[in-house]
This record gives sequence, C-alpha cells and structure tokens, in this order.
Amino acid sequence: MKFELTILGCGSAVPLKHRNCTAQVLNVLERYFLIDCGEGTQHQLRKYGIPYNKINHIFISHLHGDHFFGLIGFLSSLSMQNRKGEMHIYADARLERLINFQFELLRSKLSYPLVFHSLTREPSLIFEDGVVTVESFPLKHRPEAPSCGFLFKEKSRKRTILKQAAADAKVPVAFMQYLQMGEDYITPEGVVVPNSELTIDPPASRSYAFVSDTLYSPKVAEYVQGVDMLYHEATYCHELLKMAKLNYHTTAAQAADIALKANAKQLIVGHYSSRYPDPEPVIQEARTIFSNTYGAEDGLVFEIPLEKRKFVVNN
Amino acid sequence: MKFELTILGCGSAVPLKHRNCTAQVLNVLERYFLIDCGEGTQHQLRKYGIPYNKINHIFISHLHGDHFFGLIGFLSSLSMQNRKGEMHIYADARLERLINFQFELLRSKLSYPLVFHSLTREPSLIFEDGVVTVESFPLKHRPEAPSCGFLFKEKSRKRTILKQAAADAKVPVAFMQYLQMGEDYITPEGVVVPNSELTIDPPASRSYAFVSDTLYSPKVAEYVQGVDMLYHEATYCHELLKMAKLNYHTTAAQAADIALKANAKQLIVGHYSSRYPDPEPVIQEARTIFSNTYGAEDGLVFEIPLEKRKFVVNN
Repeated sequence: MKFELTILGCGSAVPLKHRNCTAQVLNVLERYFLIDCGEGTQHQLRKYGIPYNKINHIFISHLHGDHFFGLIGFLSSLSMQNRKGEMHIYADARLERLINFQFELLRSKLSYPLVFHSLTREPSLIFEDGVVTVESFPLKHRPEAPSCGFLFKEKSRKRTILKQAAADAKVPVAFMQYLQMGEDYITPEGVVVPNSELTIDPPASRSYAFVSDTLYSPKVAEYVQGVDMLYHEATYCHELLKMAKLNYHTTAAQAADIALKANAKQLIVGHYSSRYPDPEPVIQEARTIFSNTYGAEDGLVFEIPLEKRKFVVNN
Repeated sequence: MKFELTILGCGSAVPLKHRNCTAQVLNVLERYFLIDCGEGTQHQLRKYGIPYNKINHIFISHLHGDHFFGLIGFLSSLSMQNRKGEMHIYADARLERLINFQFELLRSKLSYPLVFHSLTREPSLIFEDGVVTVESFPLKHRPEAPSCGFLFKEKSRKRTILKQAAADAKVPVAFMQYLQMGEDYITPEGVVVPNSELTIDPPASRSYAFVSDTLYSPKVAEYVQGVDMLYHEATYCHELLKMAKLNYHTTAAQAADIALKANAKQLIVGHYSSRYPDPEPVIQEARTIFSNTYGAEDGLVFEIPLEKRKFVVNN
C-alpha cells in the first residue's frame, strides 16, 4: 500500500557530479509514475533499484532539456529489452513530433506502442484508474517552453468494516458492500444499526503535487490545495529574486509561501541552481517560513504512510 | 606532449551501473577530441575531470542511440555555460537535420556555432591542423546506421638538433630550420657536415584508431595499418559468432585478428554486450590471439608516451 516518491535528480540546467537533472518516480500502490526525465534518468533508475519495466506513464512538465533529454534513451532501452506494453507520455504536443521525427529519420522503431497525451493550459484530469487520478495544471515558465505541474491523488477508499461489530449485528454478507459505502443496517426486526457502529473511516487518501519550473504563482496553491506532499522548485535563495524572475523561477521563500497558502502538509524543495552544490541555504530559507520542509537529494525516498483510522469508543 | 585516451563508456546498447554507453576522449597535445557521445557522456566528462570546454571536435561513428544520445545534452550544457567558439561535429548527415529540427521545434538556440561535417563511405581526411590529422573510414554495420571508424595520427615532427654538435660545426642560426628538415650543412670552406652528425630522428608520430560497431572486416586492418593503439569493438566472445553476425558486430577473437593483420602495437577491446558484466572472458579471448590486449573500462586512461630517439654513436 505504498505511496512513495524517489528523487532521481533534483538539479537544474546542468548535471553535477552528485546531482542529476530533474526526474522522479512516484510509486502509488505499485503503479510507477515517472515524472520528468532528464539525461541520465535511466542510469538513476538502475542505480536506485526502481523496477523501471513497471513504468507505463511518463509525465514531462516542459520541453527544456534538463527535464526530458533522457526520455529517448529510456524509451530505446526498454525497446531493446523487448517491452510490449503501451507507454503513455503526457507532454507538450511537440514532443510527439520530435520523437516521431527522430525515429523516422533514423529508421528505427520501438518494440511497443507510444501513446501521447497533449498537455493543455487548463487544469485537466489526464489519467485515472481504479485507485488514482492525475491532474495537470499550468505553471508560468518561459513562453517557448510552457510548463505544467502534476497532482497525483489516491481515490477515496471504501469504509472499513468492523468485523466483530458486523458479526454481532448479524449483517448478511451481501449487505457488506453497502456498509462500506456508508449505509446503516436495518435488521429483519426493523432495528436501525447506525453505520458508525459497524465501520470506521477508511485510511485517508494520499496526494502528491509536483511543481516544476515556474515563476512564483499563488494560483498554484489553489491547484494543489490541501496536498499531503508538495515538491516545489526553489532554484534560488530569495536574495536572488531578480534572477529568479529573469529566468522564470521561484525562490525558496516563495516556494515555502506556496506551501503555506496551499495548506500542504509537507514541502520538498529542489531544482537547485548549480550555484548551490550544497543546497542547505535553500532548504533553511524555506524552512524558516514553512517548518515541515525537506530538501530533495538524488536517491532520497519520501513516503506517505497509510494512516489507519482508529475506532474510538464514545463513553 | 600527451597522447592520451580516456574511456568514458565502453558498453553496448544499454548502460549498466558500472559501464556507460560508448564515449571516449583523445587528448593529442591538449587538443581534446570527443569520440562518440552516448547518454551520460557529459556526466562522465565531469566525473573524470576532463576539461570539456576544450573540446572543439566531436566524432560520431554512427546514429545508434548508445553512440550519440548524449550529444544534445552536452551541446546544451556548453551553451548554458555561454561557450562562444565553434563546435565541429563529424557525423552521418542526418544528425545535422535532427539537431536543427530539435532546436527549431523547441525554439532554442546555442550560444555558439555548430559546424557539421558529413561522413562519407570512402576513407577520407576529415580534419587536419599543424600537428594532427583525423581520417574516417567505412565500417560494416546495419544499413540504417552506416558506421565509420576514425584514425588519429600525429604529423611527423621535425628532426631534433644536437645542440653541441651544431655549435661545434658553427651552424648559423638561420640554417637550423634546414637541419630540422634533414639537410646537410656545408661550411663556408665547402666542407659537408652530414645531417646525421647534427640531428637525430624526432620522436615517432603516435596514432590511435577507433573502430566502432562493425561486422568483422579485414579491410579495417588496411585502413589502420601500423597503428600504435587500436580500439576495436568486441561485443561478444567467439562462441556467439552467429549472434555477432546477426547483430552486425565483431567477436573478441575477430577483433584480435584485425589487430594482428593491422600490425597494431596495442589492442583495446570494448563495446561489451551487457551479458558480460565482467568483460574478462572477452579480454582473455582476444589476448590469446593478440597478447598486447587490454580491456576498456570506464575511467581507464591509455597513454602513448613520446618515444625519444637516442643518439647512437657509431664506433
């Protein structure tokens, strides 16, 4: 029942010895979502032991090289391993043209189908299955490389049945699904047993938001309101605000402000400028504003545990 | 006066944890030539401390991803560092189309000019300056990805003047350049002082050949005849000859045979299949046929020292 983020790279622009360009993997109950894919991402997937064959969905925030130059190599390597299943790519529509042009020019083919999904400038539901939804939302980056963020949310679970209480009330098996949906049980004698005596709240749904390259934008806080874990780019410390604006980036203080406004439970900062080989100043700056701040680091794993609700007896 | 090869990657197809895709740097007297550029090459350049800003010439053997997917990232990173000097790229003509398409589609530009040089299917002199020449020669690889090898040769040096002997013979300064070219000195009195008494042979010119993906081809031995150091792909051991033929590759025994036929002084094998995480069987197989065989390994440096000629007095 994992909900776990692995940082594969958290630098900006150019790779450093100890810090690769942007890429992350989010594991939601053994669904592996790849988020951005800077050069060397396939190396990092191997290094950190991610079962990369299970990745079926790749989300590319925008078309700057440090966020997607590793894609073509990763796709090609999967093909060399004779992958058959569809790979879904969510990105700027130009990426499809670029990849198709390259494969046609080089007269090469993948062993499996690529399915492209174009990102738009409107908040959109871009993926959904039985347990998770993924939404994209627009960020404010350079005009030539429109950028999107992604919000991953577990769907609500069914209510958890208290087995002993249900047995005591002699709830028939066929009715259990209605209990899970919150209905009261009415005995053959017409006695109403309130649902609250037979079930407890399910574990809370978990959520993660990835906010890629962007100018400070309070609108982002609306898109990710109440998120459990927020990754926000924090390329510079606030003393370099002018440079942040010039380069369409956010400062650590601004990232923390977004986390506050969004009522996020936890903030991860990353996408550090190469001027911070040690990102501690960035992390500390954000932490003074939003205390539950962590610094991204290649290989670091952030897990959101499943919070089981306890049955509280009212006396 | 270095002539030094650094292996940046020596695997085939997909990167392994300890072995990157193909790339090498040859340093000829502080000219840094990049040969192939698999994904992660810029990471390796940093890791092994190569002054990559000095690279002005990149040679791409063929357009399979494991030999060039790192190029776009490397070029982009140099641009982010505001490089100004021309970068020369020697490759299949399609690479120029691909790179231009990508930059136009993404509306991005480099801070410096790219100069493309198309490789042909004929042996050709593709680069020359005061001290070194580079020739390309055709290999036999997949039809969709014609492959070339590269031969780097120092030019002949001028003869080394024996200072004391020249002083004793009272050779005028203005004549020294003729001595270096091998002329005898004739004194004002008409006495001929043979050049052999005034100079010795210069250090031998050094040479390196890179033989990329290819079927076994004895013709290669002609192209690289007498080379000092030969890198030859040896993807498989000879027991997998059928697979080597199927995939247009060479076995270790065949690579060693080419080294023998070429009268090479030294053989380096590489481009190991991922089925050999430890390439020792490949290296040993080649060594039984050509004893002066070494195995490539990421980060390994092979130097050809300058062999100074000694003045031998005839008694």
